[in-house]
Amino acid sequence: MPSDLQPEIFFKPSNQSAPARPEQNLLQAAQAAGVGLEAPCGGKGLCGKCRVRPEGEATDPTPGEKALLGTRLADGLRLACQCAMPAGGQVHVPPESRRGEAVILTSGRSEGLELDPAITSHELSLAVPSLEAPEAARERLFAALAQARGQEPGQGFDLPMGLLRALPGLLASGGGRLSAALRHGREVVDLRPAGASPALGLAVDLGTTTMVAYLCDLSDGQLLAVSAAMNPQAPWGADVISRISACQSDPQALGDMSRAVVESLNQLARDACAQAGAEAERILECVMVGNSAMHHIFLKLDPASLAQAPYAPLARRPVELKARELGLELAPEAWLHWLPLKAGFVGADIVAAALAVGADQIQEPTLLLDLGTNGEMVLAARGRMLACSTAAGPALEGGHIGQGMRGAPGAVERARLAKGGLPLELSVIEGLPPVGFCGSGLVSMLSCLLEAGALGESGSFDHERAGEHLRQGDRGPEYVAAPAEHTGHGQELVLSAADVAELQLAKAAIRAGAQVLMEQMGVDKLERVLLAGAFGNYLDPAEARRLGMFPEVAVEAIEGVGNAAGVGAVMALLSLRQRRRAMDLSEAMRYVELSGHPLFNDLFVDSMPFQNV
Amino acid sequence: MPSDLQPEIFFKPSNQSAPARPEQNLLQAAQAAGVGLEAPCGGKGLCGKCRVRPEGEATDPTPGEKALLGTRLADGLRLACQCAMPAGGQVHVPPESRRGEAVILTSGRSEGLELDPAITSHELSLAVPSLEAPEAARERLFAALAQARGQEPGQGFDLPMGLLRALPGLLASGGGRLSAALRHGREVVDLRPAGASPALGLAVDLGTTTMVAYLCDLSDGQLLAVSAAMNPQAPWGADVISRISACQSDPQALGDMSRAVVESLNQLARDACAQAGAEAERILECVMVGNSAMHHIFLKLDPASLAQAPYAPLARRPVELKARELGLELAPEAWLHWLPLKAGFVGADIVAAALAVGADQIQEPTLLLDLGTNGEMVLAARGRMLACSTAAGPALEGGHIGQGMRGAPGAVERARLAKGGLPLELSVIEGLPPVGFCGSGLVSMLSCLLEAGALGESGSFDHERAGEHLRQGDRGPEYVAAPAEHTGHGQELVLSAADVAELQLAKAAIRAGAQVLMEQMGVDKLERVLLAGAFGNYLDPAEARRLGMFPEVAVEAIEGVGNAAGVGAVMALLSLRQRRRAMDLSEAMRYVELSGHPLFNDLFVDSMPFQNV
Repeated sequence: MPSDLQPEIFFKPSNQSAPARPEQNLLQAAQAAGVGLEAPCGGKGLCGKCRVRPEGEATDPTPGEKALLGTRLADGLRLACQCAMPAGGQVHVPPESRRGEAVILTSGRSEGLELDPAITSHELSLAVPSLEAPEAARERLFAALAQARGQEPGQGFDLPMGLLRALPGLLASGGGRLSAALRHGREVVDLRPAGASPALGLAVDLGTTTMVAYLCDLSDGQLLAVSAAMNPQAPWGADVISRISACQSDPQALGDMSRAVVESLNQLARDACAQAGAEAERILECVMVGNSAMHHIFLKLDPASLAQAPYAPLARRPVELKARELGLELAPEAWLHWLPLKAGFVGADIVAAALAVGADQIQEPTLLLDLGTNGEMVLAARGRMLACSTAAGPALEGGHIGQGMRGAPGAVERARLAKGGLPLELSVIEGLPPVGFCGSGLVSMLSCLLEAGALGESGSFDHERAGEHLRQGDRGPEYVAAPAEHTGHGQELVLSAADVAELQLAKAAIRAGAQVLMEQMGVDKLERVLLAGAFGNYLDPAEARRLGMFPEVAVEAIEGVGNAAGVGAVMALLSLRQRRRAMDLSEAMRYVELSGHPLFNDLFVDSMPFQNV
Repeated sequence: MPSDLQPEIFFKPSNQSAPARPEQNLLQAAQAAGVGLEAPCGGKGLCGKCRVRPEGEATDPTPGEKALLGTRLADGLRLACQCAMPAGGQVHVPPESRRGEAVILTSGRSEGLELDPAITSHELSLAVPSLEAPEAARERLFAALAQARGQEPGQGFDLPMGLLRALPGLLASGGGRLSAALRHGREVVDLRPAGASPALGLAVDLGTTTMVAYLCDLSDGQLLAVSAAMNPQAPWGADVISRISACQSDPQALGDMSRAVVESLNQLARDACAQAGAEAERILECVMVGNSAMHHIFLKLDPASLAQAPYAPLARRPVELKARELGLELAPEAWLHWLPLKAGFVGADIVAAALAVGADQIQEPTLLLDLGTNGEMVLAARGRMLACSTAAGPALEGGHIGQGMRGAPGAVERARLAKGGLPLELSVIEGLPPVGFCGSGLVSMLSCLLEAGALGESGSFDHERAGEHLRQGDRGPEYVAAPAEHTGHGQELVLSAADVAELQLAKAAIRAGAQVLMEQMGVDKLERVLLAGAFGNYLDPAEARRLGMFPEVAVEAIEGVGNAAGVGAVMALLSLRQRRRAMDLSEAMRYVELSGHPLFNDLFVDSMPFQNV
């Protein structure tokens, strides 16, 4: 067949190409074409780094892509390792996906994600006992395991009583053949008939608001399914402080909140397994991350100390227990592993996010920010890491804002200066009539109002420039974003001066926290800002920068890194090396307490103006 | 004070003496006098070897002495380490208690019992967290533990969730001071207010018929109390085969039998603690021994394989689990450790007995015998050990004997040739009118009847010599031991030809088993026979020898060693070195299967006559 009939894939802007092969994904095609794509996870669909924009017919998005790309999918972005173009076509490779160009994300990641899970599976054939050698069933199992692993015959293992009780039945029905799963090469955590389906693992990011579960095949590291739900602890309060208070005022609350999450997690595991055609009892390990309050409440540890100086957690390094102890319905002998916390307000989620972005290897000054009620952040440079938590408050999540709301249908998610002036054009989630502002919408509103001159750097409305769009409300002047007849709830949609002040406090807290870390590390200028979490993906970097949310940084150096905490949890699930690295990283990270810090208050006041200096 | 007014203790027959000091026990006095007494446990009241006969006023017997000496106490024997003579007097030292004279029991025991339990206790004072060093409570506990143990500060430990949950309350009430108990220097198994009472341990010998619990102080190795009860599994059958069958015919039986023993064991622990003024929740470890069927049933392991060729157990090496998993009401985090089994019919009890007598160090050919339904035995010589089990049947425990019974009040326990002929004089337990024969009584009856010529070596009654004392019963000729008017049940007490045949089969099985082991090891002659278990203590060595129960051995070389299995369990509780030694010993021991053994049947037939050749 002449080569001009063979479909080709052309990579832009480098103009390299490779033949389109149906069995090859775009990452493999890029490798064939000599295009260096970021793929620290080795093409397992985990790191979300090999983003490309196919300009032609491509295969359908996978669950992993949906989880990792979110709304960027709609923008045409895909993960090269999860996507193929059997008929060929053009593929645009954005600069951040080119290996060697995104310096920070490359550093320390080039080794890729080696599959090295705590759980290993073995197909065994046990010796048959005889009168001459009447060896016990358990010891024959151990000998077969040692042989399968190339160890000394006398190698000891641990076998839980439940599995020992099941062993004779398995041996009788299988003629001495069975599948065994080992954890850390030591404890037998599952026994089943020979030829069992692959062992599964679950990585969970337990957020204050949402919880996400990633189901992985531990035999090949593939992400099989992702499921998500709202954290069912909302009735006890929207933020961690409310929930900690609930534990102090009601002795039942701790157990009730833990149970609520356990039940949701059981449902998430079943959902993910249903997507993957698997069974939850094949899940042999669950790795969890979340903030320190979620950690304590889930584990039924009194969170009181988290809310009182010196804000010390009860346990900081990894906590391990049998999943069934909390009522998780996974394999009966499945283990739960919580990644380490750093401090009372720097949780396992930020440790996992730091792992996901390779903060321990970053050379150029980089700020990793998890925006939320507590703005947790890590400043990384030259292998050093400083972490702090600022009480940013819930404004950036729409909390404490007159008409604030979460990023749900009906929320204003973006504003735009139309015809060079007011009123602002609004983008609303799912195109509905607006009913409120979500975090990214608020940032966008402020940015546009600043640009239009209707809002001053001090945070005061300019009555002249705002003109007819400003009115006097109960809590001071208000910008009317939409008249009652255009909204979903039949009321005017307004942004008040009080709302502006809330956002100003939040952004000042974040910026001042970052500056304390920079002072402490002796860093003058940030080279990169990485925004973790869903909010980071929705936020427009230029808008956030215009508000002065971060110390000065180039707009193209601000990047959303998706659910980095979840990615870090998956990395720790699939690789013990990464799990140890998370531990080392959390030990190496220095925690900076901002309350009472001599610099913080001055920097906080200096950070109040809406300006990027 | 002139020395002739100072009370003295004189040791016989060596005529050495030492001053009587109220604070010194007789073992210490013997040391002061230069008398070498056997004391492999180092004077902790565990080994029962420092037996002496005080001939003067002595302190009251301790619970440990009652347990270890049994009826020998009534004979005037005492343990030197548990007994004092504040007013002085004479002390007779029997040959077997003199160090260096009882060669076998000395070998390998001279190092004494070093206290080295799995559980260690530590009084800790935790660092106070501050804003500068807001370290987590668990990590501060670990740092204090590492410091207390002279380990690196980063040393990891395991802390069960239940204890982690209790930690903040303990720290708050104790101002950072607390007591911690560690197992194997790794897992925290108890936390309590500072200055806690000593950690306790329980050693349990779970026999088919009786169960005995030994409560020990793990801080100094002292035996605090002993409690005993009948094994409550009797309703499922008197012997292990009946109980294994019960499991096969009734799916509930396994769980029910396990639960019954667990409840009895909880009661034994409470009883022992009540004696010692202690609390069962201070028991942090329980070491158990018993035969393989008791092991399996207690652990809810299907015992079916024990009763079918090749008689392989489900687990042979030590089994460990949290005691609470079975419902044991000890400390919440207490562990249970079963010593290793050797084979389906050579259990952890015989392994523990072998440990207690130091079988791994024995040089001169020695037979260790645990007489019971299964005559389990170990032949030890020159550091080698062979073990087997013979189906001796229950005759030696009074089973399958027309008027057989256990060693309870009313049982004939000894017979004597009065006036050189028949009728035999009977000794009955508690001096009651007789109602049956217990094991030692049966052996004694046969021995006397042989001596009187009323019974021939072939096992047939001699009608002429037995004369009027013989009558014809339903099952053949019967020796009338007591007329109806002299018995406790108003019936004649008889020993039938069928009873004699049962006993003959039992003794032939034991002797043939021992001879197979001797053949296999190339041993011509035994230098010593050690009888373990209560029966061994009651049996008259000369009588047993006259029946030809053992291969030829000098009568003074036959010795009861008490509840050696229980002593071995205590040794393994108090010393990890002994626990490892039990493991090594069980691995070094070779198991000889008698069923189908080419020599056994011929030797069995040859062993039928009642003669000691």
